Amino acid sequence: MQYFSIDEIKGWDRFYRANFINSLQGFKPVSLLGTVSENGSPNLAIFSNIIHIGADPVLIGFINRPVEAAPHTIQNIELTKQYTINHIQPSFVAAAHQSSAKYPADQNEFTATGLTPVFEENCKAPFVAESAIKYGLQLVEIVPITHNRSSLVIGAITHVFLEEGLVKQDGFIDAYKAKTITSLGIDGYYSTEPISRFDYAKPGKATTKLSDG
Amino acid sequence: MQYFSIDEIKGWDRFYRANFINSLQGFKPVSLLGTVSENGSPNLAIFSNIIHIGADPVLIGFINRPVEAAPHTIQNIELTKQYTINHIQPSFVAAAHQSSAKYPADQNEFTATGLTPVFEENCKAPFVAESAIKYGLQLVEIVPITHNRSSLVIGAITHVFLEEGLVKQDGFIDAYKAKTITSLGIDGYYSTEPISRFDYAKPGKATTKLSDG
Repeated sequence: MQYFSIDEIKGWDRFYRANFINSLQGFKPVSLLGTVSENGSPNLAIFSNIIHIGADPVLIGFINRPVEAAPHTIQNIELTKQYTINHIQPSFVAAAHQSSAKYPADQNEFTATGLTPVFEENCKAPFVAESAIKYGLQLVEIVPITHNRSSLVIGAITHVFLEEGLVKQDGFIDAYKAKTITSLGIDGYYSTEPISRFDYAKPGKATTKLSDG
Repeated sequence: MQYFSIDEIKGWDRFYRANFINSLQGFKPVSLLGTVSENGSPNLAIFSNIIHIGADPVLIGFINRPVEAAPHTIQNIELTKQYTINHIQPSFVAAAHQSSAKYPADQNEFTATGLTPVFEENCKAPFVAESAIKYGLQLVEIVPITHNRSSLVIGAITHVFLEEGLVKQDGFIDAYKAKTITSLGIDGYYSTEPISRFDYAKPGKATTKLSDG
């Protein structure tokens, strides 16, 4: 095994360190966040730090970097209280990555990247037409993280849109069938292959396979 | 597209809803969290809600469910201030899943699942010997999430251990080469396949591939 101490990591060049640290927690739920500004201009940005908070009430969070580094999405959410999260499929991964470019606030990233906005009833924010799994959220709370001035943005799900045929008998959404991708580090994108699903684990009883993926 | 309103989702049976909602944000960085109780008993538990918070300072968070539903890991972290996060490889995915069983507090999940604890200098918590990518953390803050009584546990990285040959020239950690798995929903586990890495995106310039994975 190679060992890296925090003192060694702190001494690295910031790009090298960012690549290393952003890869360290493994594969992430990368998605496109859709918002709209107060004057109605659509915004689209790629985020990989998305997290399940709870199923009852249905809450999903994401980490927004310090506002000066990543201002548009969070400002739009503060103003309009609504946003969308859209899974990425391989057919538009290059366009999705391009949305990470630092466009000015008035630039519509849908136009810039060639992705298609679609508006649904009771949601001001645009969804990505190309995405096979997408959901709309209502802002619940922005929790400040004082240690690095980032924020945990918590939303309650209001809408879910799925391609036909993805929901299994027990409610599991087959994101593998939808070809949803996952990301690693800042710029690596991956498809997945099923290993297996397992039965509910109990003490004293060996884990049993529910199915192969 | 199939549409699901939040009112429809709220009406579902809680297991069906939990499967659906836990799948919705896509593929997650599933890992094993190692802790030790005040009297020195090792604890191991599987978590998929792990999130990058920042690279400077190096902060990683995870969501702990309400304490009464998932007490041991968070109580050990509050007492000892240290914990480890260990990637999962396919060779021990069944043992890793088995650690989700509700064992009593004094049951050592390493013994119960057959995984091997390993202790390193300046870290009270055990690492998982079988894991190819693992890191130790010092507790920074437990942020309460009032809406569902879960918590965002924030830690600063203190140690990183990697199998030889995983760090690329730019600091990127090749978790694909390490065979790190990702999870979907509550009980689905997946391997990955590289799509590509992309260059730093700039406005007005098409995204270019850096490499195929």
